Amino acid sequence: MAKPAVPICPVARTLDVIGARWTPLILRDLLLHGAQRFQDLQNSLVSIAPTTLSDRLKTLERHGIVERRFYSEHPPRAEYVLTRKGRELGPVVRAMREWGEKYKD
Amino acid sequence: MAKPAVPICPVARTLDVIGARWTPLILRDLLLHGAQRFQDLQNSLVSIAPTTLSDRLKTLERHGIVERRFYSEHPPRAEYVLTRKGRELGPVVRAMREWGEKYKD
Repeated sequence: MAKPAVPICPVARTLDVIGARWTPLILRDLLLHGAQRFQDLQNSLVSIAPTTLSDRLKTLERHGIVERRFYSEHPPRAEYVLTRKGRELGPVVRAMREWGEKYKD
Repeated sequence: MAKPAVPICPVARTLDVIGARWTPLILRDLLLHGAQRFQDLQNSLVSIAPTTLSDRLKTLERHGIVERRFYSEHPPRAEYVLTRKGRELGPVVRAMREWGEKYKD
């Protein structure tokens, strides 16, 4: 049976957007700290490769979860912020945090 | 900076357990349908390789999220059920479902 391009199951649809390694941690940083520059995210995630971070941010932009906002024109400098659709992923990250706080071992 | 064996961030700790591809969908099936045989999960997840499913279930067992329950001794037949610790991941899967239901595109 061919896999549909967009999954029918809503859990699978969400995983298509946030299921990749690192992505929930990027969302965590944007939810917790608001607008973040690329370098802020790089510093927070330490061992993420810059190409991976760039790839994840592009995917999130394409899905309308984050948007780039320019805070300087000369030179052009951008930061990443969650859209409304992105902020609505807050309950997913919060539920992960609550479980991780309960089970520390 | 070396990455700690067990992450300090509770979101990262949860991802260490459920972050792998397919794992949230295995949890979804166990939450939704209760005890499942290996073949039930295989049928539901269609395109998962049996070795991957086996690997994911072993990881979940090791973390105390699922346990095997024998429902027949001759021949030995097992099914997988969520532990209490596993059922407490319900809010994570539910939050994913709610977001996926809202954003169908």
